[in-house]
Amino acid sequence: MTTILGVDPGLTRLGVGVINHGPGRSVSLVHVDVYRTPPADEPAARVGALFRQLEKALDEFAPDIVALERVFAQHNVRTVMGTAQISGVVLALAHARSIPVSLRTPSEVKAAVTGYGRASKAQVGTMVKSILGLDEIPQPADAADALALAITEAWRGLGPQASAPEAGATPAQQAWRAAEAKARQPRLKG
Amino acid sequence: MTTILGVDPGLTRLGVGVINHGPGRSVSLVHVDVYRTPPADEPAARVGALFRQLEKALDEFAPDIVALERVFAQHNVRTVMGTAQISGVVLALAHARSIPVSLRTPSEVKAAVTGYGRASKAQVGTMVKSILGLDEIPQPADAADALALAITEAWRGLGPQASAPEAGATPAQQAWRAAEAKARQPRLKG
Repeated sequence: MTTILGVDPGLTRLGVGVINHGPGRSVSLVHVDVYRTPPADEPAARVGALFRQLEKALDEFAPDIVALERVFAQHNVRTVMGTAQISGVVLALAHARSIPVSLRTPSEVKAAVTGYGRASKAQVGTMVKSILGLDEIPQPADAADALALAITEAWRGLGPQASAPEAGATPAQQAWRAAEAKARQPRLKG
Repeated sequence: MTTILGVDPGLTRLGVGVINHGPGRSVSLVHVDVYRTPPADEPAARVGALFRQLEKALDEFAPDIVALERVFAQHNVRTVMGTAQISGVVLALAHARSIPVSLRTPSEVKAAVTGYGRASKAQVGTMVKSILGLDEIPQPADAADALALAITEAWRGLGPQASAPEAGATPAQQAWRAAEAKARQPRLKG
């Protein structure tokens, strides 16, 4: 079994979703939370507070992999800098713990959980609820998005950005290596 | 005496400049370095490596304040995300050590060290060499820029972003408070 921690980065609201990934497509909820910092606080205090909370989450849930939303400079220019700052903190904290980080685009996540790359927030939330067998759609959207990132990671495997040595491999080579790795893997857990 | 650590953030080259600030405008070089990461490496490895080097520098030089270049989303869209990620790491590491971070714009730095907000890199380098009494202009430009950030901080005091409670004060109020603070300050050191 693999534990995956998804992060929907942001300064005002940061979503964290932890799932366990069993055999095949089976996934289950471990934890979900949204960390908030007041926009009126100074940047260092906001980033610092989220740093401590992320550190705590990584130590508590000890994920095998972190799935992080890839941030683009083109979107939401006003909020993108804070989002990128937090992404840097996630990358640094995960790397310090030797946890691989997989970067996923929003459209990739939407496609993975709803089958449609331009799905709405509501559709993503509904599918997250259904996939994880929850009673309610996780709220706010940042919580559902963090879980959707983790589910995407479970179903699609390690993203291209995190697996740099594989970057030059063709899909067939990648499939071969994955099959090889699977054959070598002891099936003691899960 | 105050120790100031300036950071010119970047993924490919990150400048770190440390100075001591004595009475008045007297400043002296303590340390200057440029950390590099290979563009071919994965983002987490690059951010992670800089995280460790920054951590080491903060612990070694124990600055009283960090002066960090303020990053704008408008400029250099291709490199701005990595720069913002590193800024987040600097903010988080400084905050964890209770070191205030002052954010300075490039034009503010240019104006402080050359008297002209649109000065060239070469002019900034020349002034840094002259102000700190160095034999050579620090190379590459990231090294000179990090020192220029530290000098700006020394001469202009804590930047507006770092001193959130002062944000609403008029320039006159700020000047009054600065004069008050100066009058109260015991002149035991420097």
